[in-house]
Amino acid sequence: MPQDCIFCKIYHRQVPSTILYDDGQAFVIRDIHPRAPVHLLIIPTRHFTYLTYLTESFEPMVGHLFTVAEEMAKREGLGATGYRIVVNQGSNSGQEVPHLHLHLLGGKRLGPLG
Amino acid sequence: MPQDCIFCKIYHRQVPSTILYDDGQAFVIRDIHPRAPVHLLIIPTRHFTYLTYLTESFEPMVGHLFTVAEEMAKREGLGATGYRIVVNQGSNSGQEVPHLHLHLLGGKRLGPLG
Repeated sequence: MPQDCIFCKIYHRQVPSTILYDDGQAFVIRDIHPRAPVHLLIIPTRHFTYLTYLTESFEPMVGHLFTVAEEMAKREGLGATGYRIVVNQGSNSGQEVPHLHLHLLGGKRLGPLG
Repeated sequence: MPQDCIFCKIYHRQVPSTILYDDGQAFVIRDIHPRAPVHLLIIPTRHFTYLTYLTESFEPMVGHLFTVAEEMAKREGLGATGYRIVVNQGSNSGQEVPHLHLHLLGGKRLGPLG
């Protein structure tokens, strides 16, 4: 793991946080600056920076992040009202941590996409 | 395919559109109401409504949508500046077409997530 990656540090318990879910492939924490009543981060346990570095062999891993997002949406009571998944890549997107992650947002009527 | 699904109709050439990419698993069109200078839709060729109906056996297919998104981001010149991928699910998200799809947005500084 990179020494300076906050997500890797959280996963390896070097920085305190509350891990809501962990199956060895992916883990889940709450965003510390939530943009919605429910705002979770679904994070692969392996350190990837950007999608551009992923080969097709990682497609099952990326798809698995969505299975976890769907599971967490159910746990957070978003099944009936819906939710949004966002992946930011690079400067124009506002990506803050260079370790691939999905944002899961719900609990309110969400705004425009971009 | 469901008779009333606009994405299925586009894929099967029953409604005119410009298909930018098609590999048999996924196809790509431009959003007709773009929210950014680049706003594409990455759509599985098979009709799925919501993530909640996908079992783990579909994880490679969902992951493949990201490979296609990354490829399209390169083709659209978003490699250096970045992009955002959004998946809307259900009413609170603003999902308009009940056939699973990824929004790919870029070409400007993007706004808040939710």
